[in-house]
Amino acid sequence: MSNIDIFVWEFLGTAVLCLLGNGSVAAVVLKNSFSHGGGGDWVIIVMGWGFAVFAGASIASPSGAHINPAVTLAVAISGGIPWSSVPVYWAGQLLGGFLGAWLCWAAFKLQFDKNDDNSGTRGIFCTSPAVRAIPWNIVTEVIATFVLILWILTNPQINSTLGYAAVSFVIITIGFGLGGPTGYAINPARDLGPRLAYALMPIKGKADAGWNYAWVPVVAPLIGAALAAGVAALLPA
Amino acid sequence: MSNIDIFVWEFLGTAVLCLLGNGSVAAVVLKNSFSHGGGGDWVIIVMGWGFAVFAGASIASPSGAHINPAVTLAVAISGGIPWSSVPVYWAGQLLGGFLGAWLCWAAFKLQFDKNDDNSGTRGIFCTSPAVRAIPWNIVTEVIATFVLILWILTNPQINSTLGYAAVSFVIITIGFGLGGPTGYAINPARDLGPRLAYALMPIKGKADAGWNYAWVPVVAPLIGAALAAGVAALLPA
Amino acid sequence: MSNIDIFVWEFLGTAVLCLLGNGSVAAVVLKNSFSHGGGGDWVIIVMGWGFAVFAGASIASPSGAHINPAVTLAVAISGGIPWSSVPVYWAGQLLGGFLGAWLCWAAFKLQFDKNDDNSGTRGIFCTSPAVRAIPWNIVTEVIATFVLILWILTNPQINSTLGYAAVSFVIITIGFGLGGPTGYAINPARDLGPRLAYALMPIKGKADAGWNYAWVPVVAPLIGAALAAGVAALLPA
Amino acid sequence: MSNIDIFVWEFLGTAVLCLLGNGSVAAVVLKNSFSHGGGGDWVIIVMGWGFAVFAGASIASPSGAHINPAVTLAVAISGGIPWSSVPVYWAGQLLGGFLGAWLCWAAFKLQFDKNDDNSGTRGIFCTSPAVRAIPWNIVTEVIATFVLILWILTNPQINSTLGYAAVSFVIITIGFGLGGPTGYAINPARDLGPRLAYALMPIKGKADAGWNYAWVPVVAPLIGAALAAGVAALLPA
Repeated sequence: MSNIDIFVWEFLGTAVLCLLGNGSVAAVVLKNSFSHGGGGDWVIIVMGWGFAVFAGASIASPSGAHINPAVTLAVAISGGIPWSSVPVYWAGQLLGGFLGAWLCWAAFKLQFDKNDDNSGTRGIFCTSPAVRAIPWNIVTEVIATFVLILWILTNPQINSTLGYAAVSFVIITIGFGLGGPTGYAINPARDLGPRLAYALMPIKGKADAGWNYAWVPVVAPLIGAALAAGVAALLPA
Repeated sequence: MSNIDIFVWEFLGTAVLCLLGNGSVAAVVLKNSFSHGGGGDWVIIVMGWGFAVFAGASIASPSGAHINPAVTLAVAISGGIPWSSVPVYWAGQLLGGFLGAWLCWAAFKLQFDKNDDNSGTRGIFCTSPAVRAIPWNIVTEVIATFVLILWILTNPQINSTLGYAAVSFVIITIGFGLGGPTGYAINPARDLGPRLAYALMPIKGKADAGWNYAWVPVVAPLIGAALAAGVAALLPA
Repeated sequence: MSNIDIFVWEFLGTAVLCLLGNGSVAAVVLKNSFSHGGGGDWVIIVMGWGFAVFAGASIASPSGAHINPAVTLAVAISGGIPWSSVPVYWAGQLLGGFLGAWLCWAAFKLQFDKNDDNSGTRGIFCTSPAVRAIPWNIVTEVIATFVLILWILTNPQINSTLGYAAVSFVIITIGFGLGGPTGYAINPARDLGPRLAYALMPIKGKADAGWNYAWVPVVAPLIGAALAAGVAALLPA
Repeated sequence: MSNIDIFVWEFLGTAVLCLLGNGSVAAVVLKNSFSHGGGGDWVIIVMGWGFAVFAGASIASPSGAHINPAVTLAVAISGGIPWSSVPVYWAGQLLGGFLGAWLCWAAFKLQFDKNDDNSGTRGIFCTSPAVRAIPWNIVTEVIATFVLILWILTNPQINSTLGYAAVSFVIITIGFGLGGPTGYAINPARDLGPRLAYALMPIKGKADAGWNYAWVPVVAPLIGAALAAGVAALLPA
């Protein structure tokens, strides 16, 4: 597969992932939205993100459906793709996340305009820890990403509709089981792309983009992925 | 497949879609229903509509399971069906949506009768924006439909039980991620058919049918579908 | 398949169906249960019953996984089983529903004992209309069962794990979309079996078993099934 | 398969199961978590545990994906594995549950530290009855495990992605339908492993580990499994 093709599919898949995932948080955060205030907020967010992975991954199927730099890293470590492809995957994913966030902003433009307090809107696009203490925040993101990547590497036939559904189920249980402390980035592009977009968005009264935390959801998932790739290499064949 | 067969299957599938989808909204809007007031309203609506697509699509399998004029448009643009079939599909879908709404009304007849304020019952059958500003309402519906159609065109083997489940998952994440601002029509027949029915229904104290907005959920999904068909044509083979 | 085998599988499958379905309602109705009071009651009931159908149907796979007299009637009308088997199916289903209800009672024995008001416990086992008006209650049950049976008859390859999952999705959307008015019996054995059990259960302060309504969730689903079988016979091959 | 391989896969699978399952309860119990207080608590717990089984079972696929001593017992009774393998399975499962609990603790470390009252944290890791009366608590756990094992033994082709999804659906309906009274251990390793971990965890103000109840969620699931294996042996071939 050519680099352009890889870029296009990862870009599209990650854009759809972040559009729908960001939107699921917007749905419960923003007033003046039919989804606001009906209860079950965390169920909406986790199910929304979970099936957003399904939608994005099945679109990005031709390039292997990574839509996550941590997955790309683990696949490269495991020998599934050449290292020279990694920057192409990462670029497509990051730009896809950036575009997806903007599309979410456009879809909810009126809700942002009517919102009386936009200081909490950063959480729509990127993660912050519920309790800040960087070492433990890293631990949480490492563990969550480790589980995701270990699952992927031990279930290699996932490039199919059924496989993408399976990944969604795993994302859903990671969301319910490990999402509470740090918002489960588990994907550098899903966090950094929309964070860059949020920094540029014309939202009145918005918060800063939280740059002093931004490296955590980039570095920790990559650590978790590398650890999982190492463990997977030691497993019985 | 004969035009009559196309009409019958699309009619049946869209009727089931709108019956169950409309009912899922009725379930949380109308008092004197066991589903009222238990919490998780938006989860009920989104899951109800999502699996309603599963039910309707798998019934309409012989005709390709469009049950949505925007899907039919995109398939026609992509060369999957002749243009001469398009009006047949659309007619079946629109009439199906009309019938489905009436069946929903019949199923909830006693709830409508006992409801002390029916001014909010239009939302059971057709969409209105949470914040009205037509250009941005169009943007939201175009984006949401674009995602749906792009997914369908890049996942062409969806005519199977597994494929219809996959579409349902996509509908669910679109509902959670993009449904809040405009109620995610993303399907002209799903909106216009039940709107026509609502205009005729003998519901005491009902609202007007919102005709000055009615063109948006018809036109915007068709625009989104055409855009997605155009983008899909440019994608790497 | 021998009559004894049919009886055994339908008995087991319907027992599991009613045990888990009844339990899902008990979970939100009865105090002193971890599932009580956490919100999302209708989601719990509908998802619980939906996947209860999955569990029961996949156990009853050898006999065709009817676990519902309305399904058996429709399959018999359509020529799928001989009429002489119908009473065997029905007996297994009815007795299975009866046993399942008792197992639910045993599992929640302490909750029934500690409940301060058991007058609302009938709804755990069998249905009553939210608003009583028999003709319209029948309409609701006929429509809901019609959708279920039409789906089954137009998706005949459902005897597989994927097929039972598909049925569950249909049951879930019927629950969300049509369950509010009458509690969606859509299955005579699921209603009459547990109602008989409830009438005999040693629950202090329980309500009467609602016998003057009991015929509706038996007769209406059978009417809906017969109508669906008739419509299915007219559909294009 | 060598004993070491069995041990490794069961250890990993059960660790993932308990990490994600314990985390789903932590998500709603612990304050200072994004998942706290949004409503739908029981839905989160049941869906989280349900798909945690999916994640754990698909990782433990090479060893048959037991991740539950009760499953191992039933498979051994049914002749699926030699009795000499049973202690290996059990050891891997118990230690996996122990590790999974510790990983959950690490992921939620800051939440435990900030929690103003940790007396209710035992329920994150292991079960206690909502109403204590040991004989009936045993009945509930026996029934719930019986349903799970009967399902597994009558659906033997479950070692596949679709099969693990199927098991998850069964776990979900057992959770909704039978989880309220005792917290549905239905798996000795899932209860005892994390209970041992909880006894050792440095959580300020934590409760005792409930040792006087601990034998119930070990013994009762084994009884339920043996009963199900016995019934399955009597079923028509």
